[in-house]
Amino acid sequence: MGSESECGKSEVVLGVDGGTTSTVCVCMPLLPFSHHLPDPLPILGRAAAGCSNYNSVGEDAAKDTLEKVMEEALSQSGVKRSAVRAVCLGVSGVNHLKDEERVLNWIRDFFPAHVKIYVHNDAVAALASGTMGKLHGCVLIAGTGSISFGFTEDGREARAAGAGPVLGDWGSGYGIASRGLTAVVRAHDGRGPQTMLTDHILDSLGLSSPDELIGWTYADPSWARIAALVPVVVSCAEAGDQVAIEILNNAVEELGSSVKAVVQRLSLAGEDGKGSFPVVMVGGVLEANRSWDIGREVINAILKTYSGACPIRPKVEPAIGAALVAWNSLMKELPANGHR
Amino acid sequence: MGSESECGKSEVVLGVDGGTTSTVCVCMPLLPFSHHLPDPLPILGRAAAGCSNYNSVGEDAAKDTLEKVMEEALSQSGVKRSAVRAVCLGVSGVNHLKDEERVLNWIRDFFPAHVKIYVHNDAVAALASGTMGKLHGCVLIAGTGSISFGFTEDGREARAAGAGPVLGDWGSGYGIASRGLTAVVRAHDGRGPQTMLTDHILDSLGLSSPDELIGWTYADPSWARIAALVPVVVSCAEAGDQVAIEILNNAVEELGSSVKAVVQRLSLAGEDGKGSFPVVMVGGVLEANRSWDIGREVINAILKTYSGACPIRPKVEPAIGAALVAWNSLMKELPANGHR
Repeated sequence: MGSESECGKSEVVLGVDGGTTSTVCVCMPLLPFSHHLPDPLPILGRAAAGCSNYNSVGEDAAKDTLEKVMEEALSQSGVKRSAVRAVCLGVSGVNHLKDEERVLNWIRDFFPAHVKIYVHNDAVAALASGTMGKLHGCVLIAGTGSISFGFTEDGREARAAGAGPVLGDWGSGYGIASRGLTAVVRAHDGRGPQTMLTDHILDSLGLSSPDELIGWTYADPSWARIAALVPVVVSCAEAGDQVAIEILNNAVEELGSSVKAVVQRLSLAGEDGKGSFPVVMVGGVLEANRSWDIGREVINAILKTYSGACPIRPKVEPAIGAALVAWNSLMKELPANGHR
Repeated sequence: MGSESECGKSEVVLGVDGGTTSTVCVCMPLLPFSHHLPDPLPILGRAAAGCSNYNSVGEDAAKDTLEKVMEEALSQSGVKRSAVRAVCLGVSGVNHLKDEERVLNWIRDFFPAHVKIYVHNDAVAALASGTMGKLHGCVLIAGTGSISFGFTEDGREARAAGAGPVLGDWGSGYGIASRGLTAVVRAHDGRGPQTMLTDHILDSLGLSSPDELIGWTYADPSWARIAALVPVVVSCAEAGDQVAIEILNNAVEELGSSVKAVVQRLSLAGEDGKGSFPVVMVGGVLEANRSWDIGREVINAILKTYSGACPIRPKVEPAIGAALVAWNSLMKELPANGHR
């Protein structure tokens, strides 16, 4: 406790990445203001819990999850709530100012009044994990769902896609896999060409006929269960299956167009369209690390229109991105030469 | 009761159309065997109830609904179960022989042992409502979902589409409407062209911004609620909106290809592809009766490949089709010149 007065050495920031699948909190020491971040970043504690999207689990459960994960990260770090200078929560389901206020109201009383609290959508944490805390550029997230989020240095933001399968989220893992399943049904009933997807998807699901796919999809409509078939589609494309290749090409086009729409609306590439800006790539669909590399193809599609796009595959997790946003935001609020 | 011996005048057949939304039973007198059916057909009683798809409501509820609707139709007709000669049940969710046996087992004890019971998918009732009981040709059903079902005179059958939205049922009412919603989102986030669909869909839903569509779709994933937007898409197409026209053209192509796939697999148009066969058109998407007429366009698409396709828009409801199947099937089991 005595060291807290020594230029904040025991003071910390928290970063929270609150998603629909899991919630992670990291605790970082309050770094000195510098243009160079230490590598690796010092992490004092890390905790994980379940869903904190209140649209999925309700407000009480979401609030409890966020409090629990912050409490545990602080406990691991051996610091008290009063040692926290700033918190950034990137929470799935936060889309409007009123959503930010809702989450802020849950958390406000958890910390002493001097603690700065910043609430954003979880895409902000993902962007910051690639830009090391700077809110500028575009992040493309493609896992079970997909979304493009962009931010300008003067605080404007825009998004594209991310509306779920009913509203045409076709570049997502769910979109790719459901098109793979559809191709099997179409080959079976005579509407579409034969494809390797039939044998490979049925094998991976332990089914013996495409007729059984209807029952399989109705039995559990979870998007993640469908999206888990993406690697099968990629394997078939790698083996030269034209139907699978077309599905992936279509997903690449969709994902590329969602980034380009955001870049255009925010003029991220400047007036001549040639300016440099980061594109942070996150999520299982983009990280496949396969010879048919969806992420690489998406980057190529973006570069055709915006030659200044700088693809970044983050080396740290989104919760660390959130902690860096907390640190950056705090720095901006303090006088230029110090942070006390 | 005494009249039962007079050549079956008081004997009846039952037809049941068991769908996911509603279940209808009609009771018809046992008509004399003839190539010409009376017009209008004599209907002694008709009853309606809720869902009888056991995939949706469970076996007990589905069985209860079927029994209740048959009981009520008989009661309205003033005849007893013993006066029934044959029953045809066209039930949604019946896809395999084991499904037919399941429904047969529910119903078997409801009637005396001499009563003939025929169990089919509900598409059979829809086909028969256009062919007046003859199981030959193809039926295209396009309401909330869509499916093509075909039958040959020698008892073979085939289907296409009808696998639900996850598996690409794109020509259905749900498919058309979800593409309309998607077009609004894409116009809003900059991925797609501006479209009249934005104002017209938001108006019809009482929403003020496309951002609110995400919440609207998540609030209730019912397919019928989405499909109810089809008339809005048709109106925009009629007013010349290119995005809406493209959505409808795509649906026409999908629906046409599902019929053509069935016709080809069953060789319904004969070896030269020029033979004549009925195409029965059923469901809200095809019956729109608008100047942009999806049903007419689907017929044109089919005729380009199969010039012998004879489109039929049924004048009677599917339950009557089922009753005619019961009557036809009974006749086939009896000696050629009589039905006793």
